[in-house]
Amino acid sequence: MCQLLGMNCNIPTDICFSFEGFRRRGGETDHHSDGWGIGFFEGPGCRLFLDWQSSCKSPVAELVRNYPIRSTNVIAHIRKATIGQISLANTHPFLRELWGKYWLFAHNGDLKTLPPFAGSRFQPVGSTDSEQAFCWLLEALASQFTAEPPTQTLTTALKTLVAELSQYGSFNFLLSNGETLFAHCSTNLHYVVRKAPFGNAHLVDNDISVDFSSVTTSTDRVAVIATLPLTDNEAWYAMQPGELLVFRDGEPLPAT
Amino acid sequence: MCQLLGMNCNIPTDICFSFEGFRRRGGETDHHSDGWGIGFFEGPGCRLFLDWQSSCKSPVAELVRNYPIRSTNVIAHIRKATIGQISLANTHPFLRELWGKYWLFAHNGDLKTLPPFAGSRFQPVGSTDSEQAFCWLLEALASQFTAEPPTQTLTTALKTLVAELSQYGSFNFLLSNGETLFAHCSTNLHYVVRKAPFGNAHLVDNDISVDFSSVTTSTDRVAVIATLPLTDNEAWYAMQPGELLVFRDGEPLPAT
Repeated sequence: MCQLLGMNCNIPTDICFSFEGFRRRGGETDHHSDGWGIGFFEGPGCRLFLDWQSSCKSPVAELVRNYPIRSTNVIAHIRKATIGQISLANTHPFLRELWGKYWLFAHNGDLKTLPPFAGSRFQPVGSTDSEQAFCWLLEALASQFTAEPPTQTLTTALKTLVAELSQYGSFNFLLSNGETLFAHCSTNLHYVVRKAPFGNAHLVDNDISVDFSSVTTSTDRVAVIATLPLTDNEAWYAMQPGELLVFRDGEPLPAT
Repeated sequence: MCQLLGMNCNIPTDICFSFEGFRRRGGETDHHSDGWGIGFFEGPGCRLFLDWQSSCKSPVAELVRNYPIRSTNVIAHIRKATIGQISLANTHPFLRELWGKYWLFAHNGDLKTLPPFAGSRFQPVGSTDSEQAFCWLLEALASQFTAEPPTQTLTTALKTLVAELSQYGSFNFLLSNGETLFAHCSTNLHYVVRKAPFGNAHLVDNDISVDFSSVTTSTDRVAVIATLPLTDNEAWYAMQPGELLVFRDGEPLPAT
């Protein structure tokens, strides 16, 4: 299994604090040491750092930890290999372009057998069930919509597709196009929304605290999504099995 | 305009020496300071480091300079913006998936007006002529071949498409799927093949030398392709306008 980390904000924000705790789970405070990756959207652009080394030892993780890249949508993943060998091609997040936008995807869980592939536009490069599921989702969306539909329409379509894939196993995932971040819980996914009045946060995986009131303005809003809570003094919401949340501007959109 | 750097080898090799000279042209020894990027294939996987900062100052370039990633196919680019603003979305190389493989592309030149787009499968995310041309090429290849054809067939198809695009302006480019590296010259592209007996090489852009005989075995073969020669004591071959070379295992395939 693996662990997921996501961030969705209303203003470009760096993820250094959360990443500091998360990366330690890649071989130090937990056993997810079979590669890791993190993707940052900056406007429509996206940069993706991948390494097959564990995130607690990787020189690339050291860079990400010290280089405050400001982004409104981030997806990160630390891997404990179950399906597919340890290699760069099997390292999440995966990136594809659809409708003139980049899409990032990372998965935690196992999908035992996937339904047959409807097309060949999106094909996996590696051998993970996760990349297959991502391609399956994009193929299905591309066949339904020739251009990006409104978020509500897209969410409705995603819900149907995700319900279908969820029959094949555990399907916790994060998916983003740089504006919206979709978070689906099968077994384990938590989130916290940080907004004014900002307080102090203390990491679970390292004895480090930050006083967010000293590094934010009153209108900032940041949602952090993680497999397991990253801090031990904030109110993390445990998502329900089958729940798909749509984060925009640092908070989940109301359910419809 | 911009500058290109590529490497194609018969054994995974690090590009630290060549990159050390190349990155200095991004704002230090030359004026290509509007972003840079480098993509490394490792097996079928690909990792792409991008930064909108200049390569002589970027913390990401500092990482790449010091982290010897071993790869058989590398493409790098330093940008002097002409068409499209300075942003991550406009930073080369560009990455897409076709036929279950990643494809990397970087361009040096200006294409004034591109022919109309035949499809919508590959769409540019940014606003450069370069990404448009890349999408145009992939769209045309995908419409001609449902799976990857043999290299000879693919090369013949590429030659026709590249000749068409070259009518619209200057089109020096590097393109790779992780096995083969295609290099096309419109105005400026040079390459050198390093193989036994290996000698000493000295950078143009920095007073650094390396004795390749001390870091190689007798069967290693490495082709380095660059807009302008990176060393001042090796025999660089100047490609001819209109020439498309196909590099495999560290040397150009014979013309057919």
